[in-house]
Amino acid sequence: MDAAIMDGKTLKAGAVASLKHVKNPIVLARLVMDKSPHVMMDGEGAEAFAKQHGVELIDQKYFYTKQRWEALQKTKAAEKGGPSGEKKFIITEQDLHGTVGAVALDRDGNLAAATSTGGKTNKLPGRVGDSPVIGAGTYANNATCAVSGTGDGEFFIMATVGHDLSALMEYRGMRLEEAAKAVLGKVAKLDGTGGLIAIDNQGNITLPFNTSGMYRGYVDPTGKFVTEIYR
Amino acid sequence: MDAAIMDGKTLKAGAVASLKHVKNPIVLARLVMDKSPHVMMDGEGAEAFAKQHGVELIDQKYFYTKQRWEALQKTKAAEKGGPSGEKKFIITEQDLHGTVGAVALDRDGNLAAATSTGGKTNKLPGRVGDSPVIGAGTYANNATCAVSGTGDGEFFIMATVGHDLSALMEYRGMRLEEAAKAVLGKVAKLDGTGGLIAIDNQGNITLPFNTSGMYRGYVDPTGKFVTEIYR
Repeated sequence: MDAAIMDGKTLKAGAVASLKHVKNPIVLARLVMDKSPHVMMDGEGAEAFAKQHGVELIDQKYFYTKQRWEALQKTKAAEKGGPSGEKKFIITEQDLHGTVGAVALDRDGNLAAATSTGGKTNKLPGRVGDSPVIGAGTYANNATCAVSGTGDGEFFIMATVGHDLSALMEYRGMRLEEAAKAVLGKVAKLDGTGGLIAIDNQGNITLPFNTSGMYRGYVDPTGKFVTEIYR
Repeated sequence: MDAAIMDGKTLKAGAVASLKHVKNPIVLARLVMDKSPHVMMDGEGAEAFAKQHGVELIDQKYFYTKQRWEALQKTKAAEKGGPSGEKKFIITEQDLHGTVGAVALDRDGNLAAATSTGGKTNKLPGRVGDSPVIGAGTYANNATCAVSGTGDGEFFIMATVGHDLSALMEYRGMRLEEAAKAVLGKVAKLDGTGGLIAIDNQGNITLPFNTSGMYRGYVDPTGKFVTEIYR
C-alpha cells in the first residue's frame, strides 16, 4: 500500500510506499510529513517509524476482501491468456485499481491533496505507483491547485501529472479544467488511462477521466453533495 | 540506495529505492525501465526482480568505506549536540551527501538523465530521497532538458525540481540556465541546499549549486573535459 499527503501552503509533504501492515497508510503519510525530517519513507523502515509513533500495525489478513481476491485471480488468468471473450476474463478498471484520493480548499485559500492506494492489481512485489510520488499522483500548491490521480500509475509518473497540471496553470495561465484535460491527454498519448480530481485556489473543481467510469464525488460551498460513477 | 534513469524521447523511466544488496543500483533502474511493466520498485521486491534478471546482489559489507562511516559517526554526534566549534562536529556537504548524477544529449537530439545515491547520511531507515522520484531528482524530456539533482532531497521533492525546470523552459520560454537558477531559488526559499546538473536539447549545460562546492564535470562536443569542485 502506498499513500501521500501534501500541504499546498508550505509545500510540505509526506509519502509512504510498500506498506504491508499499516491499517491507514494516509495516517502514516501525515506523520512522515509532520514528525519526520523526511518526505518519503517505504517498507519496513516506514513501518518501524509507524510503530515508534503509535500507528496501528495489523495482520495482512485484515486487508483481504473477496472482491479484490477474485479480481487478482481474474487478472492473473487473463495474463496467462484465458479464452478471450469469456466473461471471467473481461478485466474492468475496477478490477485493476483501488485508489482513493481527496483534494480540498479551506476558507483561507489553503489547498491540500491526499491519495491512498493498494496499487495495481497483480503488480510485481515492490512496485510503487504514482500515488506516493509527489508531483505525479499527489500534488498541492496554494499558487494553483490540488490534484490526486488514479489509473495507470506508471504513465502518471512519466507525465508528472500533478505538477504538470499546476505548471500549466501557473506558467501558461490555463484554467483548471483546461489544464487537467491537457495533462490527461498527455497520459492518453503515452497509452495510459485514468482520471484525476482537482480543485484550484478559487474553488473550481474538475474530475476528468478517460476510462468508462470513475467513482467520484464532491461537496460545494453550499453543502451540496454530488456522487457519480459513469459520465 | 536509490537510483533512477529517464529517457527523454519516450519519457520511459525506471526508479529503484531502498536497495541494500544491489551492487550497481542504476543497472537495476535501467532494467525496471526496460524489462518490467513498472516505473518504480523498492526494497525486497526490487531485489527479487534484480535476482530474477541476473543483477549482482552482494553483501552489505561491500558498501562500507571508512570515509562514509566516519561521516555517519560525526553526523550522529553532532545530532546529539556535541561541543560546538570542535572540528569533528563541523558537518560538511560532503559528509551528508553522496549522490552521483549524469545527463546527456546525443547527436539525434535525445536527452537522458540518471541519478544514483546512498541517500542522506544518518537518514531514518526507509527514507527515500529525491533521486528516484521522477520529476524531482531525475527528469528528462526531449522537448526541453535533462536534469539530475543533489542536495537536500526532501526540498527537491517538495519543489519538484526536475519537472519544474522543464516546465519553466517549455511553458515560460526560459533558457536552461535561467530556469535552473529559478528552481534552485525555490529550493533555497524552502531552506534547502543543493545543486543540479542539466543539459537542454540544444546542448547548453548548466551546473548551479547553492552550497560551498559540488563535484562536477562535463565534456563538450569537441571532446574537451572539464572538472570542478568549488566556484
